[in-house]
Amino acid sequence: MPQAKMKKFTIRFEPSGLKTDVPAGTTLLEAAHKTGVYLSSICGGDGYCGKCKIIVNEGQFQSRPTTLLTPQETRENIVLACQSKVLSDMTVTVPKWHSLDVGQILTGDDAKRFRNLKGEAEVVGFELDPLIQKLYLEMTPPSLSDHTADHERLYLAIRQKNDAPIIQMGFRVLQRLSPLLQSSDYKVTVTVGRRGGTTEVVEIESGNHCRRNFAIAIDLGTTTVVAHLIDLTNATTIDTEATYNSQISFGEDYIRRIIYAEENDAFDELQNRIVHDVNDLLMTLAVRQKVDLQDITACVCTGNTAMVHFLLKLDPTRIRREPYIASAGFIPPIRAAEAGIQINKRGLLFCLPSVAAYVGSDIVAGVLTTQLYAKEGISLFADIGTNGEVVLGNKDWLVCASSSAGPAFEGSGVKHGMRAGAGAIERLAILEDGSIELKTIGDTHPTGICGSGLLDTLAELYKNRIIDRMGRFRIDCDSRLTEGQEGLQFQLVPAKEGHQEIVITQADINNLIRSKAGVFAAIRVLMDATQTKSEDLDAVYLAGGFGNFLNTSQAVVVGMLPDVPLEKIHFVGNTSIAGAKTVMLSQKALDISEEIAKSMTYFDLMSHPTYMEEFIRAKFLPHTDLSLFPSAGLVDSLQ
Amino acid sequence: MPQAKMKKFTIRFEPSGLKTDVPAGTTLLEAAHKTGVYLSSICGGDGYCGKCKIIVNEGQFQSRPTTLLTPQETRENIVLACQSKVLSDMTVTVPKWHSLDVGQILTGDDAKRFRNLKGEAEVVGFELDPLIQKLYLEMTPPSLSDHTADHERLYLAIRQKNDAPIIQMGFRVLQRLSPLLQSSDYKVTVTVGRRGGTTEVVEIESGNHCRRNFAIAIDLGTTTVVAHLIDLTNATTIDTEATYNSQISFGEDYIRRIIYAEENDAFDELQNRIVHDVNDLLMTLAVRQKVDLQDITACVCTGNTAMVHFLLKLDPTRIRREPYIASAGFIPPIRAAEAGIQINKRGLLFCLPSVAAYVGSDIVAGVLTTQLYAKEGISLFADIGTNGEVVLGNKDWLVCASSSAGPAFEGSGVKHGMRAGAGAIERLAILEDGSIELKTIGDTHPTGICGSGLLDTLAELYKNRIIDRMGRFRIDCDSRLTEGQEGLQFQLVPAKEGHQEIVITQADINNLIRSKAGVFAAIRVLMDATQTKSEDLDAVYLAGGFGNFLNTSQAVVVGMLPDVPLEKIHFVGNTSIAGAKTVMLSQKALDISEEIAKSMTYFDLMSHPTYMEEFIRAKFLPHTDLSLFPSAGLVDSLQ
Repeated sequence: MPQAKMKKFTIRFEPSGLKTDVPAGTTLLEAAHKTGVYLSSICGGDGYCGKCKIIVNEGQFQSRPTTLLTPQETRENIVLACQSKVLSDMTVTVPKWHSLDVGQILTGDDAKRFRNLKGEAEVVGFELDPLIQKLYLEMTPPSLSDHTADHERLYLAIRQKNDAPIIQMGFRVLQRLSPLLQSSDYKVTVTVGRRGGTTEVVEIESGNHCRRNFAIAIDLGTTTVVAHLIDLTNATTIDTEATYNSQISFGEDYIRRIIYAEENDAFDELQNRIVHDVNDLLMTLAVRQKVDLQDITACVCTGNTAMVHFLLKLDPTRIRREPYIASAGFIPPIRAAEAGIQINKRGLLFCLPSVAAYVGSDIVAGVLTTQLYAKEGISLFADIGTNGEVVLGNKDWLVCASSSAGPAFEGSGVKHGMRAGAGAIERLAILEDGSIELKTIGDTHPTGICGSGLLDTLAELYKNRIIDRMGRFRIDCDSRLTEGQEGLQFQLVPAKEGHQEIVITQADINNLIRSKAGVFAAIRVLMDATQTKSEDLDAVYLAGGFGNFLNTSQAVVVGMLPDVPLEKIHFVGNTSIAGAKTVMLSQKALDISEEIAKSMTYFDLMSHPTYMEEFIRAKFLPHTDLSLFPSAGLVDSLQ
Repeated sequence: MPQAKMKKFTIRFEPSGLKTDVPAGTTLLEAAHKTGVYLSSICGGDGYCGKCKIIVNEGQFQSRPTTLLTPQETRENIVLACQSKVLSDMTVTVPKWHSLDVGQILTGDDAKRFRNLKGEAEVVGFELDPLIQKLYLEMTPPSLSDHTADHERLYLAIRQKNDAPIIQMGFRVLQRLSPLLQSSDYKVTVTVGRRGGTTEVVEIESGNHCRRNFAIAIDLGTTTVVAHLIDLTNATTIDTEATYNSQISFGEDYIRRIIYAEENDAFDELQNRIVHDVNDLLMTLAVRQKVDLQDITACVCTGNTAMVHFLLKLDPTRIRREPYIASAGFIPPIRAAEAGIQINKRGLLFCLPSVAAYVGSDIVAGVLTTQLYAKEGISLFADIGTNGEVVLGNKDWLVCASSSAGPAFEGSGVKHGMRAGAGAIERLAILEDGSIELKTIGDTHPTGICGSGLLDTLAELYKNRIIDRMGRFRIDCDSRLTEGQEGLQFQLVPAKEGHQEIVITQADINNLIRSKAGVFAAIRVLMDATQTKSEDLDAVYLAGGFGNFLNTSQAVVVGMLPDVPLEKIHFVGNTSIAGAKTVMLSQKALDISEEIAKSMTYFDLMSHPTYMEEFIRAKFLPHTDLSLFPSAGLVDSLQ
């Protein structure tokens, strides 16, 4: 049937009122994408995550049956957008939980801390010297007594403002240079970027445009992609956004995604997904802050090695296969447009360097941000994402390792897990009377549990003897324990006024324990190898997208971190994005991040003789060897 | 009429046998271009130069009447290819004088000299260190004990062979890197090029391809474009080729072409013409030497400032207009493909720096080649092309100027002028009995006169009192003096067996004298300004496309060069292309050429108080002031 004859229908999204025309048979999720309406979706439209719920107000549609909707939801005309095909003009309502501010909280303290950089360089130890800068130049026009050519005149003017021993200029900029200098009476704004030891004239504009210069920092997580929009003129983070990585439908961890890409020759598709996610975040931030994409002149990325390879379509296959290497650890700066990222078409893309196939630039960013590399005393850094990477060291040495922790603390693989967005339970305590006290992000009715809430849940269930040291529910202990579709589950929040109940299942708990055990086993291996004892640790930094708040004591209770005095444990949030921003704002920080990446010694846990044993021992709460957790004695005595 | 219905005819070119199909009405010149058959053509098809003569063997055609063919030629079915439109299938013969070896002689001694560079670096003062090199690298593949990423592994291997503090790599090369290293078992050839202080990995290939690495040097003359094909593996010039600049139909000098381009918004067309000429030369050389264009990895260009601007489509308009400046004097290396030059698609284009709007990189190349910049004693350098540029100086100072000499000595604007190709009269003497002795390039029947022959002709006519000191024919002196279509003309070669007679006209002589006067006046201005006397000159270098041979004494006889002992005068041929090749083969030479360009002081003759006066005085043979030419006394006594 010729496409031209296919019937089109108008879909209107409330409350925004945005509309689009789509052919019959289009899913509501596709229609939302087309309209630019944001809907949460982990599985990318495959119908198994159940996140893309939407309310149908009017119109005909065809939906596949699903177990992901309760009878109550169905009565309220809630459908899964990805499973609902348009058969007429429709009006639908996007529930609040999709709203775009869900990502904001991932920045939290981190963003606040970073704002201090402005004029207070000593706070982070770097002078403000962004990788990309706009310079306003007023040149004396050429005359009979000064016949310096335009190109050389510009270079002289740049060098008066900037230390630039080697200046480069692309051909297209060179061709536009002379007409532009003449029409602007030699008053221009040049955008100059650092490209591996040289300074590139990235762009040239007539007049003074220095006050509009933005950059985007991206943390490419396996599960979550986070973006911060930075105003380079005053070094402030002006907005933040996050989304689930839409590659997730090809596998929860990146190893599975590499296998999928190899088996299906789907490297293009994997790249398209992550680039699409980045561009979505970019658009959202730009629209919300009314920033012209042309004024975003740089992008700095951090992420695990595989994600960076997917983004740039570099060959990732030997990350999962002997000899377990990256195609590139140090990525030269490229034009962002070459990777499909839709900032200024001549804007630059910088990637922080990685250490090894399993220790990416996100970890280098963490070491940079916590200043582990500069300290006299020994510090421990653990970043809990889909993988759990651990770094130990000081100014003289750095060792690192990576455990495949799984994304449980990111809310994935947990029945009511969600990322740290509005409605997420971020704190949870079981009180003496057995009742549950909780706090949600945005103080709304709870819709799920984010990382910090999950850590609390695990610790509280254990402390209150609802689970035993192996994490198994004690069957007789609590009336809130019921048999659900997936086995035993514990009710945290009862159903109420159309809101679903929130539970934690045995499978959830097993996933959480597996994650914490992987991290702790990695810590043990590094500490053993360097003969570091718990008392030798000056500081322990816990990073990750748990949420704004983290009760660090719970990390010791469950045995995720070594038992050190609580004042030594610092929750540092998303250090990956913080490091990306530090580098964006300081050339020196980029140089140091390269030094960090070069100097770190990588321990391969898979081939390590004691890792498996450490992992099995760490699968207890807090550990099989309670002597490692003296302060856990109280909890233990309750068991 | 729909194009599809337009009738097509087959044109066969003898002796090559090459064929093409063209629509009715196509000119034979267009058909030749399409087939890749080379035909001389100065005017670019406008029908006024008369160079594109071709013999029709068979077939119907329509020709416009022309005075550029003799009745004898018409009887022999000779036509102007550009004025003859195809009306049927045709067979035509391309006369030998078009043959592609006509350019070879422009290299001559120069090419021979350059071959010495191999292994004899002291000859030209530079070590062999080409701007672009192929390196064969055998790397140890990664293993469990050596997990260096591919990208960093390659950089380490490059640095073992090459001093490369800053290495850059384009994104497309980076993306191909890992698969290629794996499939080649880590044995690859990298092509590395110098890009303004950095080393770029331009290309990467599986296996060893080091023995195939070529570059092309281009001299972009206003009238003539010369190309040398260089084998970079042994630093030898393996072939050379030349063509008239096909921009010539837009004006004989570049000022007229800039005006044309401005008035007709024809900058694209001007660029297309010169790029087409360069590609034509490139193809010719590549086909003849069986060199794959992919194996030509670099192009080095020299030329006057305007020609380089046309080639790169940089704005040339202020070259002709106050404040008389270039858009760029120092052109950053770019990818040749960006300018449309059809070497390896990632190959680099280097342009030598220029000094000013009227002193281009060809002159910098001349100073480099003659080593003027390094000598204790004062030398004079004069390059006679369409303009006549002059440089005076030594290791401490350099001054330069440019006179609009006109292209007479390049054979343009002279009735039987031609470039130094087969059949050109390169030497001419009038013997005591009044008979003319001459030598042609290739020792064939003469078909025209090249630069050295024109200089001889002017000097011999003067010495034999056939012209007076103002260059006017003495009407009564010789039976070979006749009245032609354009006034008085002197027969040098009588018509014979279908060959046309060769004459020199009064207009030709006036053009030649104007050229030599411009050059000498520029020399006088620079010598006066620096208080340099003739006897202070250690050496005088005469450059230009005169031909292989030049009788330097004649340059003194006519008053083109100062009257210094003949052993001090050196004919150095095409130093523009020689300099381009030196730079191609030596990074150091590029650095020095930049120093030369920066340090030269430019004298603007148009605004100079005494230049016009000097010019008028120099329009005599040899000069109004005979005291400047003491050794010309003998000739003068004859007048």
